[in-house]
Amino acid sequence: MEIHHSVKVGEGVKIGKGTVIEEGVVIGNQAEIGMNCIIKKGTKINQGVIIGDLTILGKSPTSNRKMARRPSTTLTELTIADNARIGSHVIIYKGTVIGKDTFIADQVSIREEVTIGESTVIGRQAMIEPKTIIGSNTTIQTGCYITADTIIEDRVFIGPCCSMSNDKHMASGKGLHTGPVIRSGAKIGNNATLLPSIIIGENAIVGAGAVVTKDVNEKSTVVGNPARYLKKDSDN
Amino acid sequence: MEIHHSVKVGEGVKIGKGTVIEEGVVIGNQAEIGMNCIIKKGTKINQGVIIGDLTILGKSPTSNRKMARRPSTTLTELTIADNARIGSHVIIYKGTVIGKDTFIADQVSIREEVTIGESTVIGRQAMIEPKTIIGSNTTIQTGCYITADTIIEDRVFIGPCCSMSNDKHMASGKGLHTGPVIRSGAKIGNNATLLPSIIIGENAIVGAGAVVTKDVNEKSTVVGNPARYLKKDSDN
Amino acid sequence: MEIHHSVKVGEGVKIGKGTVIEEGVVIGNQAEIGMNCIIKKGTKINQGVIIGDLTILGKSPTSNRKMARRPSTTLTELTIADNARIGSHVIIYKGTVIGKDTFIADQVSIREEVTIGESTVIGRQAMIEPKTIIGSNTTIQTGCYITADTIIEDRVFIGPCCSMSNDKHMASGKGLHTGPVIRSGAKIGNNATLLPSIIIGENAIVGAGAVVTKDVNEKSTVVGNPARYLKKDSDN
Repeated sequence: MEIHHSVKVGEGVKIGKGTVIEEGVVIGNQAEIGMNCIIKKGTKINQGVIIGDLTILGKSPTSNRKMARRPSTTLTELTIADNARIGSHVIIYKGTVIGKDTFIADQVSIREEVTIGESTVIGRQAMIEPKTIIGSNTTIQTGCYITADTIIEDRVFIGPCCSMSNDKHMASGKGLHTGPVIRSGAKIGNNATLLPSIIIGENAIVGAGAVVTKDVNEKSTVVGNPARYLKKDSDN
Repeated sequence: MEIHHSVKVGEGVKIGKGTVIEEGVVIGNQAEIGMNCIIKKGTKINQGVIIGDLTILGKSPTSNRKMARRPSTTLTELTIADNARIGSHVIIYKGTVIGKDTFIADQVSIREEVTIGESTVIGRQAMIEPKTIIGSNTTIQTGCYITADTIIEDRVFIGPCCSMSNDKHMASGKGLHTGPVIRSGAKIGNNATLLPSIIIGENAIVGAGAVVTKDVNEKSTVVGNPARYLKKDSDN
Repeated sequence: MEIHHSVKVGEGVKIGKGTVIEEGVVIGNQAEIGMNCIIKKGTKINQGVIIGDLTILGKSPTSNRKMARRPSTTLTELTIADNARIGSHVIIYKGTVIGKDTFIADQVSIREEVTIGESTVIGRQAMIEPKTIIGSNTTIQTGCYITADTIIEDRVFIGPCCSMSNDKHMASGKGLHTGPVIRSGAKIGNNATLLPSIIIGENAIVGAGAVVTKDVNEKSTVVGNPARYLKKDSDN
C-alpha cells in the first residue's frame, strides 16, 4: 500500500494491500478500496463508495500517430459519487463522472468525458467510449459496446452484447461522428446492432439480434435485419 | 506474497510474488498459483490446478439498490477440481464449482452458483452469469455471453461471441427469468443470438449469426434472422 | 519492483511500482512500463514503447487434455517494436510481434504467433487468436474477435464487436481450420459475422450486422443475413 502524503482520507476508510494512491486523491468517509488498485492523480472517491480489486481509476488517455481523436489535455478529475459500487479489474478514465448509487461491474472499461447518472447499472465487460452521456436508472447489460458521442436517457434497458457505431463512413475521414440517441424507457434486445446517429424513440422496443439502420418511432417495436416495424405506434 | 496462517498448503505447491491468500483457503498438492492473484476466504484449490497471474478467486457478489437479483448470503466456497487450468485476469465468484481438467482461459468472468463439468473449455473473455449449469466436454468459445439460469449439457460447442438472454420482458419486472437449454451435442455458430427459455435440441446446429426465437428440434439446422429450418429432422 | 539481474535496461527507462521483470528481458531507451505488470522471460521491448498498468507480456500458451491445438514449445520471444503503445490489463503471448507505432488498447488479449504491422490500432477488449497476420495502418475496433489463421491486410477497418470463425465443422475434427482473408482497404461494419475461410475483396464494404457466408468481390458492398450484394463491382 502506498498513499501519497497529499491524499485526503475520510473516516472509516478501508484500503487493500498493494493499492497505490497518487497525489491529490480525495477519499470520502466509509469508502472501501480493494487490493492492488491504482488510483491516479486527483481522483475523487466520495463517501460510501466501494471499489473491487485490481481496478484502475483516473487513467489519462493516450493515442498513436494514426488515431483521429486526439486526447484532451484539459480533462477534469474522475469523480465517483456517493455510494457507487465499482467492480474488480475495471478501468475508468479521467474527465468522467459516475453518479451516486450507480453500479459498475467487473472488467468494465469507461473512457474519458463520460457522464453516468444515478442508480444506473453497467454490466461486466461493458465498453463505453468517450463523450457519451448515460442517464439515471438505466441498465446497460454485460458485454455491451457503447460508442462515443452517444446519448442514452433514463430508464433505458440495453440487453447483453449490444453494439453501436458512430461513423457512417468507417474511418474514411468524411462526416461527423455521432452515436445513437436512445430515449427514455426504450428497451434494446441482446446482441442488437445500432447504426450511427439513429434515434430510438421513447419506450420503443428493439428485438434481440435486430440491425437498426433507421430511426425507431416511440412506443414502437422493430425486429430483424434490417430492422422492420412489428408494431408501429405513429409516424410522429 | 501474503498467506494467512490458517491456509492449508499441499506438497510441491508454487505461489507467485505478490499473491494474497486469505483465511481458510485449501491448496492441494502440486498446485501452482501465479503472481498478484487474490484468493478469497475459503476457496478450495485441488491438486494439480494451475492458475495464471492477476486472477481473483472466490469473490463475493454485491449489488446496488436497483438490482432485482439480491446476492445470496449463504454461498458455499468456490471449488476448483483436480488439474483444472485457470488463466490470467480471471474472476470467479463464490458458490461455483469448476470440474476437473476444465480449462478457463484469460479474462473470463464467472459469477456465483455456476457449475461447470469436467474437461470443458471456456474461452477468453467469456462471461457466465449466476446459477448456470454447464456440462462436461463442452466448449464455450472466446467472448461468449452465457446468461443466468441457463442449462448447457455435455459435448456442446458454442462458437465465439454468442449471446443469450433470460428475460422476455427486459427488466419490466414481469415473468420468470429463464435462460436457454442447450442439449447434448448441439453446435452453435459464432455470434448467434439466443432468446430466453428456448430449447436447442440434441445435436442440433445453429448457423453463425442466427437469431433463434423458438425451440430448435434435435438433429436439425437453423439459420437466419429470425432463424428458420435449413434441415428439419422431425417434429417430435 | 523486481528486476532479474540479467535484464538489459536502456537509458531513461521508467518502471512502475510492483512490476516484475523476468530473466533475459530487453528494454530499449526511453521505454515506460506501468505498475504491477508482469514481463515474462525474454520479452523484447524496444525504444520508446509505453505500457500501461497490470499488463502481462510474453505469456506462454497452455492447454487441457481436450484441446485440439497443442501449444508450440519453440516459440520465439514476444517483440514490441519502437514506439508502440500497449494499454492496461493487456495480455500478449510469446511468439508474437507488434509493429512500430502500433496502438494496443486496454484489456486486449493477443495469443501466440500473431504478427501485427506498423501504425495499426487494436481497440479495447479485442481478442486475437494464434497465427493470425494483421497488416499496417489497419484499425480493429473495440471488442472484435479475430479468429486463428486469419489474414487481415493493410488499411483495413473492422468496426466494433465483429466476430469471425475458422472451423466450418465446429469442432467435429473434420477439415482444416482457416480464418477469413480480408484484403487491403476493406471496411467491415460493427457486429458483422464472418464465416470461415471467406475472402473479403480489396476495398469491399460489409454492412453493420451482416452475416457473410461467401466471398465478397472487391469494391462491392454486402448487407443482411445472409449477406447479399447491395452494390457489385464485377464478377472477377
